[in-house]
Formats: sequence, structure tokens, C-alpha cells
Amino acid sequence: MAKAKKYRLAQIVERFGGEIIGNPQTPISQVATLENAGAEHIGFLTHGKYRKQLAGTRAGAVILGRADRELTQLPRIVCDDPYLYFAKVSSLFNPQPVARPGVHRTAVVERGTKIPASASIAAGAYIGRGVKIGKGVVIGAGCYLGDAVEIGAASRLHARVTVYPGCRLGQRVQVHSGAVIGADGFGIALDGDAWCKIPQIGGVAIGDDVEIGANTCIDRGTLDDTVVEEGVKLDNLIQIGHNVRIGAHTAIAGCTGIAGSTRIGKHCMIGGAANIVGHLDIADRVVIHAAAVVTRSIHKAGSYGGHPAEDSRSWAQHTAALRHMDTLRERLRNLEQQLSTREKKA
Amino acid sequence: MAKAKKYRLAQIVERFGGEIIGNPQTPISQVATLENAGAEHIGFLTHGKYRKQLAGTRAGAVILGRADRELTQLPRIVCDDPYLYFAKVSSLFNPQPVARPGVHRTAVVERGTKIPASASIAAGAYIGRGVKIGKGVVIGAGCYLGDAVEIGAASRLHARVTVYPGCRLGQRVQVHSGAVIGADGFGIALDGDAWCKIPQIGGVAIGDDVEIGANTCIDRGTLDDTVVEEGVKLDNLIQIGHNVRIGAHTAIAGCTGIAGSTRIGKHCMIGGAANIVGHLDIADRVVIHAAAVVTRSIHKAGSYGGHPAEDSRSWAQHTAALRHMDTLRERLRNLEQQLSTREKKA
Amino acid sequence: MAKAKKYRLAQIVERFGGEIIGNPQTPISQVATLENAGAEHIGFLTHGKYRKQLAGTRAGAVILGRADRELTQLPRIVCDDPYLYFAKVSSLFNPQPVARPGVHRTAVVERGTKIPASASIAAGAYIGRGVKIGKGVVIGAGCYLGDAVEIGAASRLHARVTVYPGCRLGQRVQVHSGAVIGADGFGIALDGDAWCKIPQIGGVAIGDDVEIGANTCIDRGTLDDTVVEEGVKLDNLIQIGHNVRIGAHTAIAGCTGIAGSTRIGKHCMIGGAANIVGHLDIADRVVIHAAAVVTRSIHKAGSYGGHPAEDSRSWAQHTAALRHMDTLRERLRNLEQQLSTREKKA
Repeated sequence: MAKAKKYRLAQIVERFGGEIIGNPQTPISQVATLENAGAEHIGFLTHGKYRKQLAGTRAGAVILGRADRELTQLPRIVCDDPYLYFAKVSSLFNPQPVARPGVHRTAVVERGTKIPASASIAAGAYIGRGVKIGKGVVIGAGCYLGDAVEIGAASRLHARVTVYPGCRLGQRVQVHSGAVIGADGFGIALDGDAWCKIPQIGGVAIGDDVEIGANTCIDRGTLDDTVVEEGVKLDNLIQIGHNVRIGAHTAIAGCTGIAGSTRIGKHCMIGGAANIVGHLDIADRVVIHAAAVVTRSIHKAGSYGGHPAEDSRSWAQHTAALRHMDTLRERLRNLEQQLSTREKKA
Repeated sequence: MAKAKKYRLAQIVERFGGEIIGNPQTPISQVATLENAGAEHIGFLTHGKYRKQLAGTRAGAVILGRADRELTQLPRIVCDDPYLYFAKVSSLFNPQPVARPGVHRTAVVERGTKIPASASIAAGAYIGRGVKIGKGVVIGAGCYLGDAVEIGAASRLHARVTVYPGCRLGQRVQVHSGAVIGADGFGIALDGDAWCKIPQIGGVAIGDDVEIGANTCIDRGTLDDTVVEEGVKLDNLIQIGHNVRIGAHTAIAGCTGIAGSTRIGKHCMIGGAANIVGHLDIADRVVIHAAAVVTRSIHKAGSYGGHPAEDSRSWAQHTAALRHMDTLRERLRNLEQQLSTREKKA
Repeated sequence: MAKAKKYRLAQIVERFGGEIIGNPQTPISQVATLENAGAEHIGFLTHGKYRKQLAGTRAGAVILGRADRELTQLPRIVCDDPYLYFAKVSSLFNPQPVARPGVHRTAVVERGTKIPASASIAAGAYIGRGVKIGKGVVIGAGCYLGDAVEIGAASRLHARVTVYPGCRLGQRVQVHSGAVIGADGFGIALDGDAWCKIPQIGGVAIGDDVEIGANTCIDRGTLDDTVVEEGVKLDNLIQIGHNVRIGAHTAIAGCTGIAGSTRIGKHCMIGGAANIVGHLDIADRVVIHAAAVVTRSIHKAGSYGGHPAEDSRSWAQHTAALRHMDTLRERLRNLEQQLSTREKKA
């Protein structure tokens, strides 16, 4: 959205590798979809579905995988992973917007908190006592940081984020609007016919380079911390229960719920609207399909889906079998009739 | 909640049609449920379940469908669609509350933004640079509007709504508290073992007469806009991924998730807690049942449900078959025994 | 998080009952997990899974069930329900933090609202006209209370809670950040091809001792109130539709959706990510499993699960049957072959 600097294809390849076919001096000012690209835009093809858009594109250049190198006559960059390549090129043209440093006159900063000169605290933000704010941190409008919160350098909280007292975020963390970090976990014990609340005195520890989506909730631990390790990416409207640990570089799509005390491994990929019940262990490098309901621990890397979730191969078989159940009943009926006919004959 | 004006039955029928049975001068001051109505209230019957409440109601008058015209002796309005009729009558008695025009002293309006005299900007709201606010717009307390946001005339944002920079809302749009419009889509690419963020530089375009529920999230597009066409109604806690397009007059119930790049047709009805995976096309006039998981494109109008979703007839059959599976096993066991008995005989 | 007072085991047992084994003078300053406890901490064992942690714990004392009394040599409290006992002990060591009474200079309080001296209104909060605030109420930073809202004594709204006009909360209610109480229910009627909005003029009535999780939404009623009875505990990201009634002391885990006009009984337990469609009646003391989809009323106490939900026994059978479907097909194939072989022979 900020006005983008121009780069020539040659300059792009110099940074990110890949092979140029066509004029290396082609000027590029922005990335775009094949459908809507103009003459100074670079498009990309990552999905067979969009091949026909390649034919009609008005892009100035295109990023392609090696197998697709001859699908166009346009100036192009050929590379191993066009999706990743596009991500890098887009980051080049679209750096994070820079926030004005300083504390807005309508923000409230309590005693015992020092705001570095490079940090930006927007209108209406509230910063509690003894909060630690790293260099270059951006706190959006209307954010709430409770007492003793820690925010690592270069982290950015968009408008209206809530961080309860004592929670700690690493460096370069991004948190989107409406996210709530550190609300009480759902800890209650039956006392006769009523519920007795269990104080939630643990915190939340968020590693470096984590991104947290809009309206996502990460509850504080009952006694120890809820932990989200470095590089984890969380989409919107996710619920992370108390005492959960999410391993480094795991990505979780929107609307997923992870119940209390479950531990998710590193490098997992969890589809949208999945639900993982409490007190489970999920191994590293597990892939969980959208809308799966995980009711048991998963000890082996691999792909899982269904309700209740099972490994993808079994799940596919069961789903197919279900589809063929009518046939099954039909076949059973035939057998019964054959047997009955014979009985009569005999 | 505002003090309602009175209307006589005759005046109501003059506006909205229908037939009066009983005294057309019956005065009405408000709509109410049959159960709790008083003498100046008009009740309505839309669901067989509530027929017994009709017998005991103390309502001054009732709205009924043609088939039910003789179910009561009360003054009544008989019409084709009592639910719609009730909606209109209720709107007559309960117009939107009017907000005091003007900018609250605690609101922050950045340079380059002009607020029309008819607009209302409540306490603690933040309005970025170059924002366009239409006539009669109401911005609730604590709302955040990023730079270059556009809000069409007569739109209303309830308290604590977030609109990220550059997003555009049409006229008469209503947005409920906690909704987040324009947060970054969940765009990440694997770079070895870590994730590389893909900048989300598209916007969000919301059409006229759209309503957006509390804590619902609509992500900005990766490159082009995420689009919600005119007349769409979104309930609470819905997730709309980046690059999604939702066709005009589609209604989506709460807790539903629609993953990135999926296109939903016009006039669809999507039940609560449904999940639609990414990159699908859903035709116009598709009905999706609550809690369905849609994993493939749907090219034909009709009704769909299940996990994975299929047309409602197949779904009903499969569900029934599942219910009879025990019987199936029993029958199979019988057949096996019969055969085995014979083998022995033979 | 506050500095905890010390108690001796004998003092704890004096308050909460149970039997001490070991030195009754053992000083305790806090509760902790067995894994991370230190010499002045009391741990607890409630789950067989954590038995091996008991062997290695450095806790000063432990809370145990009667059956486990000899599993450790540490000073210990033996009781009937160690989870509940732990809850009470933790509450002793971790009382609610006390908020400074008074109205923050950046809060806005409209005319006609009186704030008791014992109440605390934090920075940036907005309190509408004619709001009733009980003694000792804490309103967090950035909260919004619409006109005529009522908040009972000793209730606490964490930062950034929204309460729409006219909604009423009882005493000792806790509401977590981002929760939205009283947004419009999803009431729309088809008018030809477009939707006509139905004004939502009912309110929300929340009983005493209710807790409401982060980003949870409770919609106002269409005509009468949406009701959450006393002692109900709601986790995060829950959707409660308009006109719903939730019976006293029911607990609902995160991500659950309850559609409009459904009535839930008292003392129910509803698992995470469950979905209950509209217009149903759920009896008292019903347990609903995580991720269940309830499509019919439940008239009998008991345990239910699945999609669509059925009683837990049938559900377990169907799930097992599904798992054995491959075998079923195999067996059917065998039978068909046997029969066909015989036909040929005959």
C-alpha cells in the first residue's frame, strides 16, 4: 500500500536467485495476480488452476516453476519454488509500514514503564506498570498491556490487542486486532452442584517471530506458562487452552481449538476448524486436516483427518466405505435372498 | 428500547398489506412474543410449535398466516408470510436509535480526514488519515479506522470495531462490536523449515446493506480485495479468509469458517459452524447445513450437508445407513453362520 | 502473581478439611505443578498420568486422593477430591487482585450514571447514561457499557469488554476481554430476494457468579431476553444466539455455538467446539462431548456425542462399526464368492 520502489528483474534475481528468461532490464514496481497485473507488475503461477490466466495476463513479468518455464513468452523468472519466491519478492516490494515513534498524547503509560525512543504507542493504548517494551515495538491504538507484560524488540501489536498482566512476547512478534493473550484458562472444579474457579496464575510465553491472528485467544496457564514457541503462525479465531505448548514453526489455520494441556510438536500443520481435545501429545511434523477432531495422542509424523481423527489413509478408506454403504446393503440383501431361495429349494 | 409510537391495525395494514380480522382501530405500541405480550402489543405465529401459546396470549392483536386465520378470536392481521410481516412491523416500531452527531472530545481524528456534520464519532474512537466518512455515519466508542478507510453513508459501526487501513465499506452497512475487517490473511510459504510471511496488500470491499456480526473477522486479500457483496448478512464469530468473494444477499450463520480464495455464490444460506475449505466455487442459491464441512466445489443450487458435505438426500441416506450398521453386521453374521452350517452338512 | 501469604498445612486442613500425613507445620506459600514445585509449594495429584512426576517432585507437600495416600513420603493432605481441594487451596493463595477504586481521568462517564466509591473504572472505559454499577465493581480499560446497562456488585469486566445498551449482569460476574454481550441476534427474514433485518429489542440477563470467556458473544433477544442463569461458566470464543436460555451451573467449553432459541438445562457440561442447532430443548444434567453436533432435543440426562449427536453408547457403537467397515466389506465379498462358487458347482 505504501508507494513501492522499482526493481529490475536482474536485481530481483541477484537477491533471490533463479533464472531470467527474457529482458533482465524489465522494470517491476509491484507483485500482482495474473488476472489483474499491469505492465510493471510481476505475476506468478503456483497452481495449475490458474494456467489459463497466464495466457491472458498483462503482467510485465512472471515467476514460474521449472516445469512451466515455456508456458509463456513473457519475461520471467524460473525457480524451484515459485510460491516462496513470490513471497520473497512481495516482501521486497511491501516492507512493513513504519510507525511514527513516540507515545500518543491519549495513550496512558503507568509508572515504572520505560518506552524506548524508537517505539510507537498509538492513541488510546494503555500500558500498565513495570511493562518492558523493546526497541522498535509498535503498540496499536486501543491496545491493553497489563502490568509486567514484556514485548520483545520489533514486535507489532495491531489495534485493540489485549495482553493480560505478566505475559511475555518475543521479538518480531505480530499480533492482530482483537487477539486476547493471557485471559484465564477454563479451570473449574465441581463443588457439590456448583463450580469452584481455579485461579490461573501461570502466564503466556510467546517465542520470537510468532504471528497471531485476529480475535485469537491464548489462555494463561493454570500454574505454569502456556507456551507458543518461535516461528509459530496462528490464524484468526483460534482458541489455545491453558497449559498448551505449541512447538516451533507449527502453523495453525483459523477457527481451530486446542484444549488445555495438549502439547503440539514442532513443524506441524493444522487445518482450519480442527479440534484437538485436552491432555494429548501430538508429535513433530504432524499434518491435521481441516475440521478434524483429534481425540487421541498422535505419536508418529504423518497426515491425519476425520472425526475422530485417524491417519489419512484409513480416513480416506472409511469415507469411501461410507459412500458405498448403500451398495453394501444392496449386496447383503441379494445374498440373503439367494440363500433363502435355496433354502426353499432344498 | 426507544419509546415507541402507536399505530392502529388499519395503519399497519395500509403500509404493509394483509387482511384485518377484528377491530381495525386496535392500538398497537410494540411487537412482542405471544408468551409475554400485553394489551397494546401485537404478537405473531410463524411456527406450529408456538400454537399453544396463541391460546393463552394476552396480546392485543396477532399476525398470522392464511392457514391459521381461524386459530384465534383476537384482532389479527392475516398475511402470506407472517415472519416477514412481523419483521416489517417490528422495524416500524423500533427504528434504529439516532446517535448524537459530532465528534466526541476524546475521539482522535488524524489530518486529512473530514467528518460530515451529520456523522457521529463516539468516545475514544480513532480515525486515521485520509479516511472518508459518509453522511449520517455512526462510529461507535473505541472503534479504530486505519488510514484511507472508506465508510459509506448511513453505515453504523458499533463500539470497538476495527477496520484496517484501506478497507472500504458501502452504505447502510452495520458492523457489530469486536469485528475485525482487514487483518492480514493467513499467507505463509515454507522456506526450508521456517515460514516466510507473504505481505497481504489487497484490501476488503464490503457492499451496501451488509451486516457483520460481533467478533467476526474478514481478512484483507493477498493482492486483490476480499469482497463481500451487497446485502450479505454475517452472524458472529465468522472467519472469512483472504481473497474470498461472497455473493450478494448470501446469509451465513455464526461460527462458520470460509478458507482463502473460495467464492460463494449469491443468495446462498450457510448454516452455523459450517466450514468451507479454500479455493472452492460454490454456486448461487446453495443451502449448506449447520456444521457441514465442504471439501469440494458445488456447481448446482440445492441443499448440502455432512462431513464431507454432499447433497442433502445422499447425506440423509448415509446418516440413516450409519444408524443401521449394527443391523448390517448382525445380518452378515447370520449369513455367515448359515453358510458355515451348510458347509458342514455338505 | 501477587505476593502470597504463607500457611502451614495444619492451617489449610483447618479451613478445608482432609487428613495430614507428615509434619503439620510444613510452611506453604503457593500451589505448583509437581514438575515445577519448590520447597514451599504444595503440589497435587489428580490424574494417573502424572504419577511418575510425583516420584521426582521437590514440592514441600502434596494433595492426594485417599487411594493414593501412600504413593509418596512427603508431607501430604489426603482428601476425597484432590482437584477440588487444590482449587480451594489455590484460591486461598491467589485471591483476586484488588483494583484501585476511582474513575480514571481518561474514562468517560455519561450523565445519569453514579459510580460507587468502591468501584474502579479504568483508563479509556466508556460508561453510558443511566448505567447502574454495584459496589466493588471493576470495569477494565477500554470497556464499553451502553446506556442503561446494569452491573451487579463485585463483578469484574477485564479490559475491552463490550456490553450493549440495556443488558444486565448479576453479582460477582467475571467477563474476559473481547467478550461482546448484547449484540443484535441474527434475525433476518427473506423479502423476495433480499433480507429484511428484524430489530433485536430484547436484552441479555446474566445471573450471579457467571464467568464469560474471552471473545465470547452473547446476543440480545429478539423480543424477550437471552438468559444465562447463575453459576454458568462459559469458556472463550463461544457463540450464544438470541433467545437462548442456559440453565444454572452449566459449563460450556470453548468454540461452542448454541443457535437461537435453544434452551439448555441446569448442570449440563458441554464439551469444546460442540454445536447445538436452534429451537431445541436440552434437559438438565446432560453431558455433550467435544465437537458433537446436536440436531434434536435431548429429554433425558446422560452423555451424548457424535455428528449428529446420539447417546454415548450408540455413538461408541457406530464409531466402532465404522472402524470395522473394511472388515465388513471383506466378509461380504467372501460370502459372495462362496455362494458363487457353489452356484457353479451346482
